[in-house]
Parts: sequence; structure tokens; C-alpha cells
Amino acid sequence: MKKASYRNRMQKLREKLAAGPLDTLWIIQPQNRRYLSGFKAEDGQLTESSGSLLITKTASLLLTDSRYTTEAETEAVDFEVITLKKRLADGLPDLLARLGTKKLGFEENHVTWGLHQELTKRLKKLSPPVRLFPLKGLVEDLRQVKDKDEVRAMQASSNLMSAILAEIFPNLKRGLTEKQIAWQIEGLAREGGADGLAFPSIVASGPNSALPHAVPTDRRIRAAEPITFDVGVKVNGYCCDMTRTIFLDGASPKFKKIYRTVRQAQLAALKQIRPGVKSTIPDSTARRIIRDAGFGDYFGHSLGHGVGLATHEGPRLGPEKPVELKEGMVVTDEPGIYLPRQGGVRLEEMVLIEKNGARVLTKDDHFYDFDE
Amino acid sequence: MKKASYRNRMQKLREKLAAGPLDTLWIIQPQNRRYLSGFKAEDGQLTESSGSLLITKTASLLLTDSRYTTEAETEAVDFEVITLKKRLADGLPDLLARLGTKKLGFEENHVTWGLHQELTKRLKKLSPPVRLFPLKGLVEDLRQVKDKDEVRAMQASSNLMSAILAEIFPNLKRGLTEKQIAWQIEGLAREGGADGLAFPSIVASGPNSALPHAVPTDRRIRAAEPITFDVGVKVNGYCCDMTRTIFLDGASPKFKKIYRTVRQAQLAALKQIRPGVKSTIPDSTARRIIRDAGFGDYFGHSLGHGVGLATHEGPRLGPEKPVELKEGMVVTDEPGIYLPRQGGVRLEEMVLIEKNGARVLTKDDHFYDFDE
Repeated sequence: MKKASYRNRMQKLREKLAAGPLDTLWIIQPQNRRYLSGFKAEDGQLTESSGSLLITKTASLLLTDSRYTTEAETEAVDFEVITLKKRLADGLPDLLARLGTKKLGFEENHVTWGLHQELTKRLKKLSPPVRLFPLKGLVEDLRQVKDKDEVRAMQASSNLMSAILAEIFPNLKRGLTEKQIAWQIEGLAREGGADGLAFPSIVASGPNSALPHAVPTDRRIRAAEPITFDVGVKVNGYCCDMTRTIFLDGASPKFKKIYRTVRQAQLAALKQIRPGVKSTIPDSTARRIIRDAGFGDYFGHSLGHGVGLATHEGPRLGPEKPVELKEGMVVTDEPGIYLPRQGGVRLEEMVLIEKNGARVLTKDDHFYDFDE
Repeated sequence: MKKASYRNRMQKLREKLAAGPLDTLWIIQPQNRRYLSGFKAEDGQLTESSGSLLITKTASLLLTDSRYTTEAETEAVDFEVITLKKRLADGLPDLLARLGTKKLGFEENHVTWGLHQELTKRLKKLSPPVRLFPLKGLVEDLRQVKDKDEVRAMQASSNLMSAILAEIFPNLKRGLTEKQIAWQIEGLAREGGADGLAFPSIVASGPNSALPHAVPTDRRIRAAEPITFDVGVKVNGYCCDMTRTIFLDGASPKFKKIYRTVRQAQLAALKQIRPGVKSTIPDSTARRIIRDAGFGDYFGHSLGHGVGLATHEGPRLGPEKPVELKEGMVVTDEPGIYLPRQGGVRLEEMVLIEKNGARVLTKDDHFYDFDE
């Protein structure tokens, strides 16, 4: 990522800050933190933060502890790194006093009730007292529209994932277990230079493919059954998310029809993904095709979601809460049909919304053309 | 895990519930959820829960969504599985009304401020209204003392980790990178039947070993420098956590002295780890030895921590907040000395506290006996 990209993001954030009632933002959510500062560390667990940002009109502080100082100083762009020798709740008051903070925004969907409670008590004792205000997706909103650096990283993760599938699919053989195949994918991801998987791979065969959220099992794959791969790698922090359903040695007429329907729904939705369109439109387009084919009861989830530093982020492409799609958003287009105990088909592309429509980033072309 | 173990845990929890002011507990923290119910699913991310428990004197409900119904019904012991068709905050009020809840305990260190806020609004509209009360480590406290099933799982994860190191260490060669070695460890973990790693492996060579929290890099390992392995696998949900520092072809006199000091500190602390002892005593024992050897400024972290379903859990073995050690606790004993930019040595055992003292679970014996 170029320094200019981080500066541009901070400038946009500060414009939002200036337009609102707050004087300081406290950013602790790991992906928001990385997006603004470049600091890559992840959190051990919810109660083990590797750092947070304090941002005012003019100041950019990165608070961390001695385990991360070197990394933070190397990675963070334009942030002053402050190594806390105390717990965060003990160290924050002094820093806020130094910044002259009166109204502090915090991330309501990441800060726990316990931490908020502890901080509230401490901060109201300061003079002047600091008041806490919840942020609902301020940085998350900025993250929805990707800049060129981000698009490049997402194309790289998509290319790597496609290359992995191009190695996996021709070598699939009856008798391999779902777990073995998932492990091959993870090995190729690591050898290919990924940071890691974007999420645990789904390799779901036969009846398991009827579970949208299947976890790989010791089941051995067989001929003529659907095998769904929902997989993604992370490159430079950015996720890829793609799904293919594969058949060894052909499919039954029923699953050919299901596959054809899902693919038609996906392609029709794809045409609706462009700037200015409401996020509910691609979903309703896909849903109508699936319903008209008689499978309306078997497509339970939303059509898609945004992808970026997180596998799941905004905007959501579902039947509710319409928002306007914008140039620069990266979203998935992933209809599916799942027949309980029999099997399912899901096909997922990750696409970049450009001026004139959607560009598919997941270039793998393992699709079937099952004629009627 | 035996059904009786889960029943025993729930019985202990209900005794605590009966002794306090609350009538219902809402458990959403993934390890707490698994500990009480046996439901193994993990959470996608903080805002993507795979389920939660509602527990009263007589009722045991597991709330999940359709993605997890089958898994929950298979895994959860004695819990009624309820598949929510709505978001949790939308579905919870009806269920609490059904249970007659008036005082609901929630996990203050896992529930976000935003979710708490939304629930508070909804729950006070019920009649009778439901009030929310923070839980500070109720289930976490129970988890500190392991039952036989848990000890068995932790011995299994420790044995697997030791077997992996026994394969890795004799094959270490100059020129391998830290990342390559870390990846070998992960491969052996998977082949050995682990659920996965307990945490990302630390393989830190030369100056990198001076960072307690180092992430594996492309640096190639060399002769006569410290190489620290802080590694662990998870088996049946239970974590192992162990550290060894290795030298290829001998160590410098300075690092021999450091190693000897760390090992002495570790063994001295080990003798202090037994039931009835305050948790600060082993730490101060180790710290005194390191200080007396002249390295007092270079041991910045606590001596140890509890391990179980989480890699880091209670009790903490540090210089502050003394608690009494109890039979059945599993803790680490991991002193270290870190010379900035030069290198460091850390040695970590994971031990079970038994009636008469500590039993080491991490049986690997790759220790040096550097004479003075």
C-alpha cells in the first residue's frame, strides 16, 4: 500500500470528523485500525488487543504495548506510536487529557460492555470530563469503497485462489476426503505466498453440500454428486471469497437443472450490479429466477456481501435494507439452492463495481454448461 | 467428553446461580458455550455468533440459526436446540418471556456495547421487564479447575505437540527460514489429528528471539544463535502451550548463562506451583533468580497463565493480584530473558496442579544442561 493511500483515507475520515459533533475518534477494531494506519497486527482474542488509534483534527496516535512497538513503528504511516506501560483503560485517560478530548467516539460493535463501563467511570473524573459516543460504522463506511491499492490486493488474492483451484480440480479423485482436499488448499495457499486463508475452507460433498456452512469432514468424495468449494485466501491483508460446485463424472438430471438455475440467477444478478442500483435489486433478480424454476424454498441466504480486509463487510446484497451500490465497491454474487439431505449448488463470484458495471475478479472458469 | 462431565459442570453452575440474585444466564462467549454444552462451533467474527445459551434453574436452551442446527443437535448435551429465524436481538425477548426471566446475566467482556444497548431497549418493554446484569467471569471461574476429561484432552494435545517437536528439532538445518519451519509444524499438527494450532506458532531466531511476540519471518536460521519455538496445538478443543529455545551447534558463553538462568528460574518456580499457594509466589521465585543473575530488566512479562479451551485463561501467575492455586488448574511456567536486538531465551512448560505439586504435561525434554 502506498503512503498516499493511507493519507487519503485519513483525510476522508477527518472530513467526516469535522462535519460531526465529536473531537476525537478511538479506533480499536483490527481491520479499521489497519485500514487507517497500516499497522498489520491482529488481536490475540477480544480481550487481547494489539493496539488502538486516537485521531483528532491534527493528532494521529497509535497506542500499543511493548510487544508490538517495533512492528507499529515500522508499519504505521504518519502515526505517532505510544507504548503503554499500563492497561489500556489505565493509560487512555492521560492521553485524552493531553489531546484535550471532550467528546470521544468509540466503536459500539467492537468495544465490550465491560470496557465501556470501566472507561466511562474513569473518563468522567477527568477535568474537563470526556464523554463517550457510539460510532456505528464510520470507518466501515469508508472501507466499502476500495482505492486502487486495495483493488490490486484483491485481484492478487483472487488470482492466487484461482491458481490454487486450477491445481486442485484436475487432481480430484474419488476416495479423497473433504478434509484432505481442504488441507491441500491450505498448503497451496501458504506456498503461494498468502498471509493465510481468508476463512476456513468449505469442501462439502454429496449431502454435506446441502449445508451452506459445512465444515470439512472425513467423508470421501464420490462420482456424480455435487462438491461445493467455498474458499478464499488473504493477500496483503485483503480477502478473496469464491465458490464453485464441481461434479466428478457428470451430474444427475435434477442437479443439472439446479446447477443451470443457479448459474442463470448468478449471471442475471451480475448484470444488475453497477453504480446507482439499489443493493436489493441483484438479490431480487436472482431470487426470482430461482423461484420461477421451482426452488424458491431452497435459497435461504442473501445474494452477497462486501469483501475487503474482512471476508464479510458492507454492503449487504440481500432482500432488505436497500443501499445504493457505488463505483469501487467489491461484492460477492453467490446464489445457491440447497435440498436438505440431498445436496446443494452454490456459485460465487467476487466482483468490482466499475463505472459501467461489474468486473469479475475471481477469474477461475470452472463452470459447467449443462444444456437442457 | 463424557455426558456426565457436562452435567457436572451445569450442576456447579446452577449452584452458583441459585446462590446469587439472577434467575437466568445468557452465555455467548464461544469457549464458555462449549464448556457447558459441548457445542463446538466457533464464531466467524465478533458480530457473527454461532449460538448462545440460556440457562435457568431448570431450563437449558441453545439458540442458534439454521446453519448450525444439525451440529448443535448432535453435539449439545441436555440442551434444547432452538433455531432462531430472526436476529438474536429480535428473537431473545420472546424466549426470555417464555422462561419468565426477570434478571438476566450477560458476559460483560464478550457482549459489545452496541448489542447490550439494543437488548436493554427491547427488554425493558417486556412485561415484566427483564433487567441485564454483568457477569464477570462466572463460567471462566469454573473453567479454571479442569475435570478428568479435560486433563485427558490437554495431555493429548501436549503429547502431540511434543511428538511434533521431536520430529522438527533433529531436522533443523541452517538456511531454513522461520516461516518454513512454522509451516512444517502446522502440517505435522494437521497430519497428527489436531483440530488446528492453538495459536500462530512463534519461530523466532537470532535477534527476533528478543521479541516475546515475534511473528515468523523469512529470516534463515543460523548456527550458535537462540531459536525460540512457542507453539501449541488444539486437540478436542483443548490447547497446549509450550516453549523451547534451541541452539544449532552450541551457544555463546553469554547465552549459555542466560539459558541456565531461565531454566533455574523455571525449575524453582515449578516447585512452588501447588495447591494452596498464592499465584504471585512462583512468579516472584522466578523473578528473584533472574534478577540475582543480573537480568532483572529483561524479563518483562508474567511467569504464566491458565490454559484450557483458550490458550490464555485464568489464573494468571504474575506479580500482582494474588489468587490461591487449586488442584486441577493447568498453568504455564514460562520465564524468559530478552536482550533487545541480540536475542532471548524463553522456556515454557504447561503443568497440571495435583494434590502434592505440579505435574508437567509437556513431556518434551529438549533442554540443555549448560555447565558453568
